[in-house]
Amino acid sequence: MRVVGIDPGLTATGYGVVEQTGNRMTPLTWGVIRSNEETLAGRLGEIHLKLRDLITEQKPDLVAVEEIFLAKNPRSALLLGHARGVALLAAGLYGYPVREYPANSVKQAVAGRGGASKKQVEYMVFRLLGLSEQKMLPDASDALAVAICCIMKQGLQPANRGSVRKTNEALLKVLAMQVKK
Amino acid sequence: MRVVGIDPGLTATGYGVVEQTGNRMTPLTWGVIRSNEETLAGRLGEIHLKLRDLITEQKPDLVAVEEIFLAKNPRSALLLGHARGVALLAAGLYGYPVREYPANSVKQAVAGRGGASKKQVEYMVFRLLGLSEQKMLPDASDALAVAICCIMKQGLQPANRGSVRKTNEALLKVLAMQVKK
Repeated sequence: MRVVGIDPGLTATGYGVVEQTGNRMTPLTWGVIRSNEETLAGRLGEIHLKLRDLITEQKPDLVAVEEIFLAKNPRSALLLGHARGVALLAAGLYGYPVREYPANSVKQAVAGRGGASKKQVEYMVFRLLGLSEQKMLPDASDALAVAICCIMKQGLQPANRGSVRKTNEALLKVLAMQVKK
Repeated sequence: MRVVGIDPGLTATGYGVVEQTGNRMTPLTWGVIRSNEETLAGRLGEIHLKLRDLITEQKPDLVAVEEIFLAKNPRSALLLGHARGVALLAAGLYGYPVREYPANSVKQAVAGRGGASKKQVEYMVFRLLGLSEQKMLPDASDALAVAICCIMKQGLQPANRGSVRKTNEALLKVLAMQVKK
């Protein structure tokens, strides 16, 4: 099974591709997309196109994105939502199924504790993937953590697609209850 | 000059196309995109593709989107950001220039007062475009209002592209100052 993990952000979008064979997880590629575009639309275009190229090249079984609830204020949440929207689109438009996981599920899966620190999670990403602890930006290791979480969840519950769908439905229900804007 | 106005939202995305000839503004088409997709990625895909088809068919000089600061909480802002991101992308990816206007600029342009009520704005949209007051959903008239605002701003300040760019830069600066997530 091959999974593309994405950690979306307007200034930096992390990505990481993990392949699972038997009990082994191998990182295929990882990195951070940074845009030089001045306009918001241009920046979103760059993020979207680079993710599209990555996904269509890697042909993953699943694309995993962190579900975000922690934005500190509406303004930063709105901006983060833009980046997340074009990231989800890069998978959805080309028919690749998307899975979303809350941050504490990612931490639980990777470091065994939903409240694990960023450092602990990073340490475990390196350990689980057999990487040396050099040369990786935090956004890239966050993306690999999401990919690892996705692989573990699929392994544990091969028929858990229903629960992922439920998550999306719950999101949309919350939205439907709120007055727009 | 032809402008596509967009009022993005996950449950309903309004659009309206306005053509200006001399002093006259004519509405060419308007409507609301609603998605039946269950997943967030699927819903974003539908919004993006329908807007892409509209924009590439209408070949506007500009695409105008409301700048949003009013989201009530981070969660609804995040969800709204997703829709807004794929809307901006539908213009940016195909090379159509995007303009963003704060809600009070739109109200000021259409109804002469930044604090105008929704009803006042709707009334003025119908008046300015010579429409009868029937059969229009609020999201569609909001989108037409953004298009009207864009046409008026372009008319008043033919060389105001710099100020629009400034708006985007200001957004990105705010973002850069915030710790991601």
